[in-house]
Amino acid sequence: MRQMHLGLFLLGTGSHVAGWRMPGAVTSFQDFHAIQQMAATAERGCFDLIFMGDNLYADPGAHPSYTLRLEPLTMLAALAMTTKHIGLGATVATTYSDPWSVARAFASLDHISGGRAAWNAVTGSSAQAAPNFGRTHPNHAERYAIAAEFVDVVRGLWDGWEDDALVADRASGLYLDPAKLHPLNHEGVHFSVKGPLNIGRAPQGRPVILQAGGSEAGLDLAARTADVVFAVVQDFEEARGQYRALKSRLPAYGRRPADVAVLPGVMPIVGRTEREALDKLAQLQGFISPGNALQLLQDRLGIDLSGQDMDAPLGDLPLHDGGHGFARTLLNKARRDNLTLRDVYNLLGAARGHWVLCGAAEKVADTLQQWFEGGAADGFNVMPSHFPGGMDDFVNLVVPILQERGLFRTHYEGRTLRDLLGLDRPERLGGRKPA
Amino acid sequence: MRQMHLGLFLLGTGSHVAGWRMPGAVTSFQDFHAIQQMAATAERGCFDLIFMGDNLYADPGAHPSYTLRLEPLTMLAALAMTTKHIGLGATVATTYSDPWSVARAFASLDHISGGRAAWNAVTGSSAQAAPNFGRTHPNHAERYAIAAEFVDVVRGLWDGWEDDALVADRASGLYLDPAKLHPLNHEGVHFSVKGPLNIGRAPQGRPVILQAGGSEAGLDLAARTADVVFAVVQDFEEARGQYRALKSRLPAYGRRPADVAVLPGVMPIVGRTEREALDKLAQLQGFISPGNALQLLQDRLGIDLSGQDMDAPLGDLPLHDGGHGFARTLLNKARRDNLTLRDVYNLLGAARGHWVLCGAAEKVADTLQQWFEGGAADGFNVMPSHFPGGMDDFVNLVVPILQERGLFRTHYEGRTLRDLLGLDRPERLGGRKPA
Repeated sequence: MRQMHLGLFLLGTGSHVAGWRMPGAVTSFQDFHAIQQMAATAERGCFDLIFMGDNLYADPGAHPSYTLRLEPLTMLAALAMTTKHIGLGATVATTYSDPWSVARAFASLDHISGGRAAWNAVTGSSAQAAPNFGRTHPNHAERYAIAAEFVDVVRGLWDGWEDDALVADRASGLYLDPAKLHPLNHEGVHFSVKGPLNIGRAPQGRPVILQAGGSEAGLDLAARTADVVFAVVQDFEEARGQYRALKSRLPAYGRRPADVAVLPGVMPIVGRTEREALDKLAQLQGFISPGNALQLLQDRLGIDLSGQDMDAPLGDLPLHDGGHGFARTLLNKARRDNLTLRDVYNLLGAARGHWVLCGAAEKVADTLQQWFEGGAADGFNVMPSHFPGGMDDFVNLVVPILQERGLFRTHYEGRTLRDLLGLDRPERLGGRKPA
Repeated sequence: MRQMHLGLFLLGTGSHVAGWRMPGAVTSFQDFHAIQQMAATAERGCFDLIFMGDNLYADPGAHPSYTLRLEPLTMLAALAMTTKHIGLGATVATTYSDPWSVARAFASLDHISGGRAAWNAVTGSSAQAAPNFGRTHPNHAERYAIAAEFVDVVRGLWDGWEDDALVADRASGLYLDPAKLHPLNHEGVHFSVKGPLNIGRAPQGRPVILQAGGSEAGLDLAARTADVVFAVVQDFEEARGQYRALKSRLPAYGRRPADVAVLPGVMPIVGRTEREALDKLAQLQGFISPGNALQLLQDRLGIDLSGQDMDAPLGDLPLHDGGHGFARTLLNKARRDNLTLRDVYNLLGAARGHWVLCGAAEKVADTLQQWFEGGAADGFNVMPSHFPGGMDDFVNLVVPILQERGLFRTHYEGRTLRDLLGLDRPERLGGRKPA
């Protein structure tokens, strides 16, 4: 029986912009002890992976955990020691890093974690990062052109070592078989990278690749290179559309539907009763102020909203330099449902543009099952509003129902994240360019 | 009473080029379980810090652990979870990285480890890295100019957050006090970096800075910015000379001699008797072949040695593009002692240019004490020939003697690496450029 895959979107103070204001909630994404507890809860809940977003600038007006956070790779390497089974996915933007270092760091994380590393390859949508790197932020098309080449280089570097290159024969003194290390000699438009890496082939062959882009360029890159795709959606029809859009692109790249897991993001607000869930949501939404949510919205949309009427229908707003998935999803919903600016920033403040699923545990499980069986999802990227409460509720109340229905694992099997996702260890593409 | 500081130079297969051939030795720097044991031994021995070199290319002919290794920051973040007290120092080259990412990663490691992070700021001396980054390797002077600006930017970024910027007041909803986040707005010759970081001020204020350069430019940079300096030396007089050269530069930068710990590198080959130690060294040296050691020597010197007579005195060889400390130290010794090429590559194969101290435990302790008390060292960077044997011998046989003599701690006191090193937590230099 086909089973769901569940990812935990681990954003320290929760995905809700003001989730940290809930009584007892974690208030800092710098508190490693708290993060360790979140990971432990995800592993208790048999999740496939923990996954972190990232951003490359501080903006005190935006989401608290964007501005104050641990760096993803160091954090996940530490979590590799405090967890045993769960996958560990970190975001690194292709616009502000270099492929040799990225390939190396994720290979290292894969070795350290025994095959649990995943790279969330994003282009980095916010122009606010650029001045921290002495750079000009490339436009959307340019970012995706860079990303496509970057991902190919990283995959090529991961394939540079044959599995049995390390000989370490004490008697003869032969340490490595040099014929089993292959330079990449990549000379492209954006990168020139010789290789090979100075680290052996990863336990997973190649670490898992995650992606989240919803634009045409993003979908193409994901269809060609991703193992897991996070979708930003607001309802079932939209999710089914995105699911089909991605899966239908796979054959062109010689891939099967089962080769990529599509996980819509969802913020579950779960109660033992419907009332309890609604009360929690109301409490969370009561913490939103124009101050924090409007800033986030402006950042997402890339436009100045200061002159707008909060309570008039939003109408058609221009979308800057295409492509921010959150922005597109929100503006689509605003048009569909005739929302006001206040509605939109409340929605954004809640889950940063993602789907909010509020209800009694049974109902939440029903809905997830319906999406999963209805061709809209291979599982979900769970985005708790706050920690530990938002995550505890899901793991304690919803996961057991999914397990009882046979929709989700009750214990870990296999050794690597690829095993959990049902993906084969890839063959080396020696010399050949990955598809 | 003044006490020594001890660092462990953690190179997976040991510093000896063929140490992995010793019976029972660790054969791979990818084996995290083995690395964890090395760190545990260093902590059992009350060492101040673990310190990793790094390199950014694979060269199967060179030192095994240069070509096959874990990436330093992910490895140290994982070790932060398996250790409690010891400092964690990683090398990141200023030539092939960017200051925002480096400042952020070490701040993150400092938070994760509770104040035990150290950055070994090197320029990256090998031109072999350049083609992995699509770059041309800058010359020595240029590398040091870049490094000097890079280190200033990193220190400035570490000072961007005031300690109490995080408010997290649930009642008012104020998360951060934006007045306590300070952009750096650095506009320099090599870097333009706005800041601030998206991570709060580190537990140590600033992570510890390690440096190793022995050139004039390297000594100046170290005198101005380093907390710990590793020296590459071959004998007492040379060590005393380097010690003085560094300490005498400090007043010009408003710093006191105690502000910087100078730790010469030493490969201890320790026996319960002199005979046992000599036998171990002979066994190790027997594993060296022209194949591995000559390659390493050519790389260090940057010249082709294939036509040279192995057994004639080396004479005066040209030193390429100034400054590789190992090369200078070795050639000085070759001239002083009239060594042949075979002598030099054996010396290099043993400890990569560092001092080899071979003898019974008591004699080894005597020599270390003499250097420490004779104005040549504030402690030592211990470079075991192989693991676990080379490190076990030192911790089991030499450390207890140093402790008995009151020259070294018997237990950990304090909380951070700065505490272990006797260094104050630095004040923020708000807006002001660090000295």
